[in-house]
Amino acid sequence: MQEITWNRTDLIDETAEVVFQSSDRLKENLNDERGIKIEEWQQNRVKITKVEVNAIGEEQVHKKQGTYVTLSIPTLTSEDRHGFSQLQESLTHYLAELHKDISITAESKILVIGLGNKTITPDAIGPYVIDAMHKKQSEHESPEFILYAPGVTAQTGFETSDYVQALTEKIQPELVIIVDALATSGSARLCRTIQLTNTGIQPGGGVGNHRKEISKEVLQVPVSAIGIPTVVEAPILMADAVEAVFQSIAAKISEKDKPSHKLSVTNWTPTTDDLDLSTLEPIFGQWVNWPKEDRRQLFEEVFSAHPERLIVTPKEVDFWLNQFAFLISESLFDWIKNARKTF
Amino acid sequence: MQEITWNRTDLIDETAEVVFQSSDRLKENLNDERGIKIEEWQQNRVKITKVEVNAIGEEQVHKKQGTYVTLSIPTLTSEDRHGFSQLQESLTHYLAELHKDISITAESKILVIGLGNKTITPDAIGPYVIDAMHKKQSEHESPEFILYAPGVTAQTGFETSDYVQALTEKIQPELVIIVDALATSGSARLCRTIQLTNTGIQPGGGVGNHRKEISKEVLQVPVSAIGIPTVVEAPILMADAVEAVFQSIAAKISEKDKPSHKLSVTNWTPTTDDLDLSTLEPIFGQWVNWPKEDRRQLFEEVFSAHPERLIVTPKEVDFWLNQFAFLISESLFDWIKNARKTF
Amino acid sequence: MQEITWNRTDLIDETAEVVFQSSDRLKENLNDERGIKIEEWQQNRVKITKVEVNAIGEEQVHKKQGTYVTLSIPTLTSEDRHGFSQLQESLTHYLAELHKDISITAESKILVIGLGNKTITPDAIGPYVIDAMHKKQSEHESPEFILYAPGVTAQTGFETSDYVQALTEKIQPELVIIVDALATSGSARLCRTIQLTNTGIQPGGGVGNHRKEISKEVLQVPVSAIGIPTVVEAPILMADAVEAVFQSIAAKISEKDKPSHKLSVTNWTPTTDDLDLSTLEPIFGQWVNWPKEDRRQLFEEVFSAHPERLIVTPKEVDFWLNQFAFLISESLFDWIKNARKTF
Amino acid sequence: MQEITWNRTDLIDETAEVVFQSSDRLKENLNDERGIKIEEWQQNRVKITKVEVNAIGEEQVHKKQGTYVTLSIPTLTSEDRHGFSQLQESLTHYLAELHKDISITAESKILVIGLGNKTITPDAIGPYVIDAMHKKQSEHESPEFILYAPGVTAQTGFETSDYVQALTEKIQPELVIIVDALATSGSARLCRTIQLTNTGIQPGGGVGNHRKEISKEVLQVPVSAIGIPTVVEAPILMADAVEAVFQSIAAKISEKDKPSHKLSVTNWTPTTDDLDLSTLEPIFGQWVNWPKEDRRQLFEEVFSAHPERLIVTPKEVDFWLNQFAFLISESLFDWIKNARKTF
Repeated sequence: MQEITWNRTDLIDETAEVVFQSSDRLKENLNDERGIKIEEWQQNRVKITKVEVNAIGEEQVHKKQGTYVTLSIPTLTSEDRHGFSQLQESLTHYLAELHKDISITAESKILVIGLGNKTITPDAIGPYVIDAMHKKQSEHESPEFILYAPGVTAQTGFETSDYVQALTEKIQPELVIIVDALATSGSARLCRTIQLTNTGIQPGGGVGNHRKEISKEVLQVPVSAIGIPTVVEAPILMADAVEAVFQSIAAKISEKDKPSHKLSVTNWTPTTDDLDLSTLEPIFGQWVNWPKEDRRQLFEEVFSAHPERLIVTPKEVDFWLNQFAFLISESLFDWIKNARKTF
Repeated sequence: MQEITWNRTDLIDETAEVVFQSSDRLKENLNDERGIKIEEWQQNRVKITKVEVNAIGEEQVHKKQGTYVTLSIPTLTSEDRHGFSQLQESLTHYLAELHKDISITAESKILVIGLGNKTITPDAIGPYVIDAMHKKQSEHESPEFILYAPGVTAQTGFETSDYVQALTEKIQPELVIIVDALATSGSARLCRTIQLTNTGIQPGGGVGNHRKEISKEVLQVPVSAIGIPTVVEAPILMADAVEAVFQSIAAKISEKDKPSHKLSVTNWTPTTDDLDLSTLEPIFGQWVNWPKEDRRQLFEEVFSAHPERLIVTPKEVDFWLNQFAFLISESLFDWIKNARKTF
Repeated sequence: MQEITWNRTDLIDETAEVVFQSSDRLKENLNDERGIKIEEWQQNRVKITKVEVNAIGEEQVHKKQGTYVTLSIPTLTSEDRHGFSQLQESLTHYLAELHKDISITAESKILVIGLGNKTITPDAIGPYVIDAMHKKQSEHESPEFILYAPGVTAQTGFETSDYVQALTEKIQPELVIIVDALATSGSARLCRTIQLTNTGIQPGGGVGNHRKEISKEVLQVPVSAIGIPTVVEAPILMADAVEAVFQSIAAKISEKDKPSHKLSVTNWTPTTDDLDLSTLEPIFGQWVNWPKEDRRQLFEEVFSAHPERLIVTPKEVDFWLNQFAFLISESLFDWIKNARKTF
Repeated sequence: MQEITWNRTDLIDETAEVVFQSSDRLKENLNDERGIKIEEWQQNRVKITKVEVNAIGEEQVHKKQGTYVTLSIPTLTSEDRHGFSQLQESLTHYLAELHKDISITAESKILVIGLGNKTITPDAIGPYVIDAMHKKQSEHESPEFILYAPGVTAQTGFETSDYVQALTEKIQPELVIIVDALATSGSARLCRTIQLTNTGIQPGGGVGNHRKEISKEVLQVPVSAIGIPTVVEAPILMADAVEAVFQSIAAKISEKDKPSHKLSVTNWTPTTDDLDLSTLEPIFGQWVNWPKEDRRQLFEEVFSAHPERLIVTPKEVDFWLNQFAFLISESLFDWIKNARKTF
C-alpha cells in the first residue's frame, strides 16, 4: 500500500504565528511587519476568525497568501440542530463575501470537487458532500454545479490535481471549490469547525495524500476550499495532551502559588499566556522546558514501530460527517441561488 | 427530475437482424450482403457469441461497426461460484483477444470509466466495478489503471462524454474501457451475460441517460465497453412474455396438432422457428398476428399513465452485481498483468 | 437457497370481495350479509379506505377480522414533500384512532418489530424503519419503544413468529406493532400506499417468507401491522396488465361502439364496471373471457422456467423506502408522545 | 444521549496480575496461590496465550473463572491473507477444543448473538459477523445456527442481557456464543488479536454499554464469547504511551548507563522487566514514580472537558472489521461442520 503522509495541521489559526499573534491580546488589526491580519468575533454561537495573509505573511507563516475564514462552535454536539443551523447560515454568508468579486450568472459554471477516500470515514467528507449534492441536483431542472468526487491518487492511479486541471481546462469554470477533510492538532476542534479559504489546497494539505497544489496559480481560475477537521494523529494528540497537562498545572500553580503532588486540572483549553513551566520541573522534569516540537518527535518515535497509522476521531464520526455534508451542500445551493439573483 | 430514457436493448444478439440470421440456422460465417458475421460456440458452460459488423452491417442493423463478444451462462445462479469463475476466465481471454493489437507495456495508460448512477442498484454496475478496482489498486505498489466513476449527467451537471473526453485529452491513454449496465429484452438473460465490444458506447445506449457517443471517433483512442444486462423495462417484459406465451402454445399445438382450452407451457426460451401463430387465433384473437412491435406499443400506452418508470430486475440484484463487479475487476487485473508480460 | 413464496396481494382493498363491493358504488356503510363494512373518503390529497371485517366477513373474504385502514396518494412522487407530510399526518391520526382503547402511559411497553430481509431492498422497509427509530431513540433520554429487526427465518435459522413470541413473553408489552413490506397486484400503488391494521400478520403475508401468524390470538397481546406495498411479482403484473389492456379497450369500444384494429388506451386505472369483454373476442380471442386467475396461471407457467424470481419495483425504490422509513418512524414517535400525554 | 461507559481493557492478558505473572518469566504452569494458570506458545505466526482462572483466581484478578484463549499475530497487516488464514485455522481449532465437552449433533441449537452498535464502526464487529453469517446461512439448505444482532440497549430500549435470556428460554440452545468488540490498552494489539473464552460477557465488558452479565450462571446454558479489540480510549492511550516512553528510555539508560538529553526510543513493545524509572527523574520528574493509574487519571481529567469521547482506532478500521467478520463467520461454520460429523 502506498505511503500516506498526514499533515500536522491544516487550520490556519493553529499555525504558530497566528496563535502567537492572537495570544498577544493586542489584536491589532493589521500587523505590517508580519503580513498577517487577524480578526475575531462572535455571531450568535459561532466564533469567526478571519485571517488575511499577504505576500509578506506568506513567507513568514508558510501559509498561502489569501483570506481564511474559520467558523467554530466549541460547544457543538452531534445532535445540536440549532448549532448546525447557525453554522450553515454563517457558511452561506461567508461564501457570498469571499466570492463577491466573482460575477455568478445562470450561465456560470462552478466546479465542485470533493477530495478524499470514501472508504476511510474521517477522510470522506469530500465524497459525502458530493453525494449529497448529486442527490439534490438530480431533483432540479437545471444543474447549478458541476460535481465530482474523484477518489484519491492511490485508488485512481492518477494525480488528483492533474484530474482537476483536466476538467478545468475543458469546462472553463468561473470558480473551482474544493471540499476536503483537515487534520487538526486540537482535539476539541474535531468536527466543530469549518475553514473557508480562497487559497485552494496546498502541498501536504488534507488528511490523505493529495500532494500537489490546487490553486489559481495552477488552474488559472479562482480556487476556494472548504475544510472540516476530522482527525488528529495519535502522536500529535499526545504531545498536545502532555502540553495541556503542563499548561493547566502551571496555571494552577501560578494561581495557588504552591506546588501539589496530585494536581487536578480543570479543562483542556490551550492557554496562550506565557506560563513559567519551569515551576513544573520537580514533578515533570526537564522536558517541560523542551520545545513542544521535541516532545512531539519523541512520541512519534515511540509510535513509529506501529505498523498501521492510528487516528483519533470522535466516536460517532460517521454521524458528524453526514451532518456536515448536508450543511455544506445546503449552504452551497443557498449561496448560488442568491448569487444568481444578484447578477 | 430530468427525464431518463431507457434503451430497449443494448445486446447485439437481441437485434432483430442478428436473431433472424441466427435463426436461419445457416450460421454461414460471413454474410456479405448483410455485413454481419456471427459465430457461436460453447466453452465449458459459457456460450460465446461473436458478432462482427462491418460498414455495410452498420447501416443494416444500426449497430456500430466492430466486434461484439457475448458471454452467457443461461443456467447461472447467484451462488454459482463455478459458473462465475468460468465467465471470469472467458472474459480475461476475450479481453486479450480483442486488444491484441494494442501494445500494453508497464508505461501504458488505460482509462477505465464506470458509467451509471450508484444510487439505483440496477444501474450501479459501473460504479461498483470502479469501487472494487479502487480497493485492489490501492493495495498495489504501482497503479495498473486510471479509474473513475463520474456519476450520471443529471447528478454531475456535466455531460459524461465530455468528461471522458477531458480526461482522455489530458491522460492520452492507449485505451479507454467503459463499464456500463445494459437493458435487455430477454428477462432470462438478466445478470447472466457479459457483452464485450470494441465499439464504445453509442447514443441511447446504457440503462440511464448517457446520451452521447463515447468512441474512437470521438476520443481518437480505442474505446472498448463491458456491459451487463441488469434490467428489463416493464412494457418490454410484457410484450415479450405475451410473445413467449404465443410461441410456446403454438409449438405445443404444432406438436400435438390439437388446440386445447387450458394450455400448459414448458418454458420460456424464445424459439426462433417460424411457427404458425394463426392457429392461436381462436383463443388469443387477431393480435397474435400483429407485429411484436405493435403489441409492445400497446403495453407502453397502458403503462404511460404510470408516473414512475417500473423496472423488472432479479430479486437479489444487489448480490448479483457485487459478484459481477468482482469478476470484471479480477479479469481486468489478470488481463493487464499478462498483457504487460507479453510486451 | 430456501424457497421464498411470495404473496399475491396483502392489501385488503385489492381483495376481490372488497373490490366488488366498492364497485357497487352503493357504498352502503354496513353490509350485514357479507360481514364487511367499507368506507372511503378523502382528506386533503390522502385517499382513506377503512374496511371493517367481522366474523362473518372473515369467512367470506378470508381476511382476518379487524380494522384495516389504507392511506394512499395516487399522485405521490418520490420528491413530493408535501404529499409525504400529509401521509405522515394521516398515519399519526389513525395510529391514535386504532389504538384508542389501549391505555398508553410512560410505563407502557410497546414492542415494534421490523420484518424483512435488509439485503433485498424492496423487502427492507421493516429493517429500515427500525434503523431510523434506533437512531432517534438513542438520542432521547428514555426509550419510547422496544425495537428489533430480526431478519428473515432463512437467515436467522429461527421462525420469526417464535422470535416475536419469545420477546413478547419476556417483555409483556401492552402492544406489538409489526412493520412489513407488502405485495400488491396494482403497480400504480407501489410505494404510494400505507396499510394499517389491528389484525397482525397472517400466514403468507408479507413480501418474503414470514409464514406463521403473528396476532393477538398467538401472542395474547394486541398486534397491529403497518405495511407498505413495494413489489409486484412479474406474472401478476402481466396478468393485470393484460386485464388492463382488455378493460380499457372494452371501455373505448363501449363508448365509441365500434371496434378498431389498433386501439389506443388512455390510462391504466382498473375500472370496476362490468364491461362486456366479449366484444374483444375478435381481436384478443377467447381468453378475454377466461377468469383473470386462469390468465395469471398461464403467465406463471411461462415464468416458472425462470430460475430466479423477477420482481417489478419502482426504479428508485431505495429512495422511496428511505422516505417511508422516516415517515413511519416520525409518526410512531409523534403518536406515542401524544398518547402518553393523554393518559 | 445515554452515557456510554467504556471499559478500560477486556483482554485477560492485559490484566495486571496476568502481565505480572508473565513477566516473572517463570511461566510456571500452575500458580496455586494465585489461581491463574498461564500458557503461551507459538503456532506458525500465531501467538497463543491460554489463561485458566479458577475460583481463587476469580477473586484475585477479578476476571471470571474459566478458560481464555488469546490468538495474536503482532505483525498482521490489513491485507495479510496468509496471516488471516492462520488466525482462522487457529480459531476453528480452539472453538473445537473449548467446546469439546458439548455434544453437537445436527439437532443441536446454537444461538449466536452479535453485540454492538452497527453505526459506530469500531463497535460493529458483532453485527458484521451476524450479517456475514446470515448471508452464508441463507444459501444453505438447513440452518446451522440461530443468529441475531439486537443492537445496543440505548437503541432498542431493552436490556440486551434480558433479550438474550428471552431467546435462550424459548430456544433452549445447547450453547450461546457472543461476538463483541473489546477495548484494549495496547494500541499495537488493535485488530490483531482474537480472544475466545467460555466465561461469557461480564458487567462493563465490551466497547459500548452492555452492562449486565451474559453467562452460564444467568442463562443456565454454556456461554462462550469471541472478542476483537478495536479501540483504545484516548486517555488510556496517552498514559500508556507516556509509560512506554519512560520504559524505553529507562531501558536505554540501563544499557548505556548514561542519561542523554534527547533520547531515541526504538520501539513500543511494553517491556515487563522492572526497570528503575527513578533514573528518569532528572528529565521527566517525579511523576515517573507515580503509579501508572495516577498518570492515567491525570489524562482523564484533562480530557474530561471534552464533550465527546474520542477513540483511537486504526485508520482503516472498516476494512479490518470486514476481514475479521468473514474470518469468524468461516471459523464458526467450519467448526460446526466438523463438530456435527464427530457426533
